[in-house]
Amino acid sequence: MENLSTLTGKYGDEGDQLIYKILNSGDFYSKVDPEKRMEIGSKALLPLISERALRYDLTVPFARFVVMNQNSLVLPFKRYQIQPVWRADRPQKGRYREFYQCDVDLVGSSSLLNETDLISIYAQAFKKLGIPDFTIRINNRKLLMGMGELTSRPDDFASLVISLDKLDKIGEEGVTKELLEKGFTEPDIKTLSPFFNLKGNHSQKMEVLERTLSGTRSGALGLAEMKTLFTYLEFLPEVLETCSLDIVLARGLNYYTGTIMEVVCPQAKGSLGGGGRYDDLTGNFGLKGMTGVGISFGADRIYDLMKDLDLFPKEPISTQVLICNFYPDAEQKAFALSSRIRALGISTEIYPDQNKLPKQLKYADQKQIPFVVLIGEEEFREGLFSVKNMVEASQQKLGELELIDILTKSILPKS
Amino acid sequence: MENLSTLTGKYGDEGDQLIYKILNSGDFYSKVDPEKRMEIGSKALLPLISERALRYDLTVPFARFVVMNQNSLVLPFKRYQIQPVWRADRPQKGRYREFYQCDVDLVGSSSLLNETDLISIYAQAFKKLGIPDFTIRINNRKLLMGMGELTSRPDDFASLVISLDKLDKIGEEGVTKELLEKGFTEPDIKTLSPFFNLKGNHSQKMEVLERTLSGTRSGALGLAEMKTLFTYLEFLPEVLETCSLDIVLARGLNYYTGTIMEVVCPQAKGSLGGGGRYDDLTGNFGLKGMTGVGISFGADRIYDLMKDLDLFPKEPISTQVLICNFYPDAEQKAFALSSRIRALGISTEIYPDQNKLPKQLKYADQKQIPFVVLIGEEEFREGLFSVKNMVEASQQKLGELELIDILTKSILPKS
Repeated sequence: MENLSTLTGKYGDEGDQLIYKILNSGDFYSKVDPEKRMEIGSKALLPLISERALRYDLTVPFARFVVMNQNSLVLPFKRYQIQPVWRADRPQKGRYREFYQCDVDLVGSSSLLNETDLISIYAQAFKKLGIPDFTIRINNRKLLMGMGELTSRPDDFASLVISLDKLDKIGEEGVTKELLEKGFTEPDIKTLSPFFNLKGNHSQKMEVLERTLSGTRSGALGLAEMKTLFTYLEFLPEVLETCSLDIVLARGLNYYTGTIMEVVCPQAKGSLGGGGRYDDLTGNFGLKGMTGVGISFGADRIYDLMKDLDLFPKEPISTQVLICNFYPDAEQKAFALSSRIRALGISTEIYPDQNKLPKQLKYADQKQIPFVVLIGEEEFREGLFSVKNMVEASQQKLGELELIDILTKSILPKS
Repeated sequence: MENLSTLTGKYGDEGDQLIYKILNSGDFYSKVDPEKRMEIGSKALLPLISERALRYDLTVPFARFVVMNQNSLVLPFKRYQIQPVWRADRPQKGRYREFYQCDVDLVGSSSLLNETDLISIYAQAFKKLGIPDFTIRINNRKLLMGMGELTSRPDDFASLVISLDKLDKIGEEGVTKELLEKGFTEPDIKTLSPFFNLKGNHSQKMEVLERTLSGTRSGALGLAEMKTLFTYLEFLPEVLETCSLDIVLARGLNYYTGTIMEVVCPQAKGSLGGGGRYDDLTGNFGLKGMTGVGISFGADRIYDLMKDLDLFPKEPISTQVLICNFYPDAEQKAFALSSRIRALGISTEIYPDQNKLPKQLKYADQKQIPFVVLIGEEEFREGLFSVKNMVEASQQKLGELELIDILTKSILPKS
């Protein structure tokens, strides 16, 4: 939860619409002048009845935190944060009203070593999760601005970015059409066209970009940054092989000013994460000139993809041993056994009710519990335990040490 | 987030007030009949402009989940859940507007083995966290009802519970005064008085309760349950020693119907957790007769207490090695070294900017980074590294293997 005023105006008009507002507590409506109640609309009423809102992302609250704590933070300041955020959007697969973001940000250093670290975190995290064929697309806002400078509308950077951002959805043809409608000229399109079709590895792409953009003011700055970044990435070959210089990556209309990045995977719709450098994120809150760079993981999309691709571990994470409960005198024995098995790190439960045995076995079956221990009158008298292997459908009667030995060997990972 | 209608009416009138309501998206006010805008108050306006709300606890959403999935759940169904909840209350230490609850619940079994498991979870968790001298207070709603049956107002259970619940705050005198004001008689107070001062271990207390409550209808049921529960707890001496039978524990006016429990610690204000059995939690959602039992950990209060008592681990969880950055030619070497050290599981960062060395050392000092590695022109030429031990204020020049050996031995836990 944040103050509504902290979030308003930070995500564009559309963003403001998608912020969930929280109604003031108590008799909120009594504070609205009855005279005004008739004539005002939702927009004028809003600030009178709502002062708080749900987080829209983790970046703006982070900026608010940095400004509030500017005197005590040691710079460069690094933090990660995993929390839910909310958007009042129409929900669909990959787009939820409530979802988790995992952000890593650093403020107070303009070095491209930071970008390198973050890209490295992306590469390692997605590898560890087993996401196949993911690509970290990398671009720089200054290169996009350089492209803009080459056109007849160098100041209309917003239009260019908004159209470019749709390249994945509407293709080159669609983008061209949009740009022409916005007032860009046929020669502009001809100038931009080579950028849509850059081929080769990053050095080959850089050569083309050097040739075309080094004459522009912003482009020259962007080229220098990109060169440094790739020099660093070349020190980390396993990271570099997951990266792709992508001159048409735009990352929407937001606060980014330098490097921008996005993680995609052919099997996933939309990006699995994105981020970039922002030179003035905290300016909105009165702290100028605090540069920073950050990335975000879209936890829910990653979860959906991993579920679709069956990437979650197969081992059951639920109960491993069920001790049945049908002979009252054996209760104490069941307790003692369960304590001993649990202490070994094996998930164990005692069936709570003294139901008929078939019902208890059905429960074990439905919950895919691999081992069931029975202590009936006979076992109790003999001081033994019957153990059912539910997978092999076998059963044997054992002493406690043998039983624990079998369970340990079958269930605990070999170390 | 839940539908507002799911939460309304589940927490009493005061609870309804404390639920954070979310404003409908879009032009929410246009749906309110202009004729009505003048005359209606906040209460009538609310359902017209808000359909969703923030979770007030995890129990009611759990009940909603159980009912929605009643055909696919395997009973008894167990789940744990850790999520934020919100209350529109005046914030103060130990009472926050947004806080995390950790709930463990089980539905579909009336066995007191479940209570035993949950109490056992409490005991183990608080022991592992290092909370000193915590007590799990245990009572049963049926015993409280039995107490009520002994008075002249057997049907005024709510009044009795509400007053008893304040015993910690206003003492026996205050509770007595309140009960008299509510219409309980002097003889009632005399009847109840022994319960306020029960002494001894649980067997001694049970003896007194048997004597006083076994003649009441509810009391007899409560006594049987309590007896069974302590029979089970006696099987687990390490759990039992943290438990205390507390006949005046009330747990407020809520859905509990059987065992109730609460975890307290002399150093903490308020309880660190609470729970109990509810026989009809899902009845509100149309599923009758689904008994369940659950506990909740108050994560924020536990955190506050652990911070106050300095119980968090002392080992720094932040950067262990800072590689300084002041000789540009050494950058690649710094990268290679950081990759190697990180691969060993040692948190390492390269100072991102080529600032003056004193500034970089100050950063290490402020962040309490114990080791700083320097690669200057001399070290670079010689193929060596200078390493500063910031704690001992010592420095030596080493080869890479020696350096890694020292860092490993100093930083990694001995296994």
